[in-house]
Amino acid sequence: MSEREAKVKAQVKVYVENYNRDRQYSISHEQVERCLAAVGVTGEITPAWHEEPDLKALADAQFLVAPRFNPSLIAQHGKALKLAHCINAGVERCMPLDWLPHDAVLTNSSGIHAAKAAEYGLMALLMLNTRMPRFATDQGGQRWQPVYSTPMAGKRVVIVGTGGVGSAVAKAARGAALHVTGVSRSGVPVDGFHAVATSHELDNVLAQADFVVLACPLTNQTHGLMSRARLKSLKPGCGIVNLARGGVIDYVATADLLASGHLSGCIADVFDPEPLPWNSFLWTTPGFCVTPHISCDSPAGYVEAGLAIFANNVQRFLQGRELLNVVDARHQY
Amino acid sequence: MSEREAKVKAQVKVYVENYNRDRQYSISHEQVERCLAAVGVTGEITPAWHEEPDLKALADAQFLVAPRFNPSLIAQHGKALKLAHCINAGVERCMPLDWLPHDAVLTNSSGIHAAKAAEYGLMALLMLNTRMPRFATDQGGQRWQPVYSTPMAGKRVVIVGTGGVGSAVAKAARGAALHVTGVSRSGVPVDGFHAVATSHELDNVLAQADFVVLACPLTNQTHGLMSRARLKSLKPGCGIVNLARGGVIDYVATADLLASGHLSGCIADVFDPEPLPWNSFLWTTPGFCVTPHISCDSPAGYVEAGLAIFANNVQRFLQGRELLNVVDARHQY
Repeated sequence: MSEREAKVKAQVKVYVENYNRDRQYSISHEQVERCLAAVGVTGEITPAWHEEPDLKALADAQFLVAPRFNPSLIAQHGKALKLAHCINAGVERCMPLDWLPHDAVLTNSSGIHAAKAAEYGLMALLMLNTRMPRFATDQGGQRWQPVYSTPMAGKRVVIVGTGGVGSAVAKAARGAALHVTGVSRSGVPVDGFHAVATSHELDNVLAQADFVVLACPLTNQTHGLMSRARLKSLKPGCGIVNLARGGVIDYVATADLLASGHLSGCIADVFDPEPLPWNSFLWTTPGFCVTPHISCDSPAGYVEAGLAIFANNVQRFLQGRELLNVVDARHQY
Repeated sequence: MSEREAKVKAQVKVYVENYNRDRQYSISHEQVERCLAAVGVTGEITPAWHEEPDLKALADAQFLVAPRFNPSLIAQHGKALKLAHCINAGVERCMPLDWLPHDAVLTNSSGIHAAKAAEYGLMALLMLNTRMPRFATDQGGQRWQPVYSTPMAGKRVVIVGTGGVGSAVAKAARGAALHVTGVSRSGVPVDGFHAVATSHELDNVLAQADFVVLACPLTNQTHGLMSRARLKSLKPGCGIVNLARGGVIDYVATADLLASGHLSGCIADVFDPEPLPWNSFLWTTPGFCVTPHISCDSPAGYVEAGLAIFANNVQRFLQGRELLNVVDARHQY
């Protein structure tokens, strides 16, 4: 262990905002205490429910950790905050980022989803290649209609987004002998991808894709990214996986292009709104598989993994070092 | 190339029996000619439909190749046969093996399914771990009911059958960091498996399984292997994949144990009879995924791969060498 990484002895004030609606992600006093102890930090930890805030503790806190945030409450009462950490990876609900003190930063838990995301992504790609969405529809109609597929190995997948989720899927897909192209804002090479294109090259690389995996943050730039025109421009028979957010794709157009046979299947874990309403057309769209936003979450260790990033950042803050996973207000992730 | 493997110059008589019902597997004169030419053999090739046999050609033929066979026709007319080759891997419909001349052998195409079987097996395991059969049922009911699963890596799969299909699935499962135990008659170690148990140890190894993959031939020994009692003895939450034959498992008991929650899901590609009748209870069994016997077949190269084994064996026969993939009448595979 280098000197810089040595444990810091410090006292901090941490406010924890839990939500009744997100009980599976609620954070206990003990969990925060344990993660901070691991980096040598002790402090005053105040877990509260969003519905019953502790305004005094919030006013004193330098650090805030939550599955998501209440911007107006924090803007009004969180004047001493230096760091707000989101236990999730997606922070689109935190935008615009105008509710933290001007010298405070927002960090997220990007990266903690890798193991599950890799497995879901690989599963979904294999399902698309095998035509499972079609067979699921056939099963609903009690129809035996064999369709034989060539092996998936050697086909091409384009993964939009090269962050924690995208790169985890890339590694798994590459392990299954797919050719893997990523798309990111910068086009910077990332481990696991054969190539990474910039978002300006998106249409060129999509034209080659047998499969498209959406794994980007939802921002002003990615909202509506997979528009009807772009979906139409995909190769006939292309299959789609959505691990990003519902707002990234036009699902009405997706359903139309599944019906026409232009798309061979779609496996989607994210919707807008969620839960997907019982009367949504997507439940009964042939060739469309719905999963209830479970792709990246494990019941074991999810909150702990997010808290470990938080604790690491508390330590870095106290040591004056660069923070991890800082959300860029301009790019919105 | 060794001398033994040098091309043989020979003339042979080959009878090809095609079936209207199995048109996707029908074998052309040109395909047989090409595969024999690749090993330096030419000959008289007679493709015929089962429904319109060429009895004269059958009586003269030393070699017979077919997707499946008509035992009574061959017993009566195939007196000169030395080798009958099945383009499929499963030969349970060829039993009892009493319809070939006593000095003739039956060979099969075991091994040609590896690429597809590996992908289907891995897909099905990932689907079971992610609880996709449950989500498919929920989708049918338009219900959003998240269930979070821990990653699959590190869990245990038992694969019953260590032949071409079983070992292909083993390698893929191992690549996904599962612990892989095989079960075979002999218990002989096979590449891809962490361990192989004998069929006498079946119940011991099944008790440890998070997932069970059925990939054995259908024989007198394996008929009804996954009985109600054996299914009940599995760990609660176990998931099942059937790539073998419908007769290997009690699907009524499977449905009951899915309903009780003892099994977490079943993904099955094989049934008895096939096609699965439209009014079978399996189409609507919650947690049960039906695929229409497509797990191991590719539209590209399937017949060619089976014919390559046939041609290899014709060459070996003419050279007096040991044949590949000889079916053992006692073991029925």
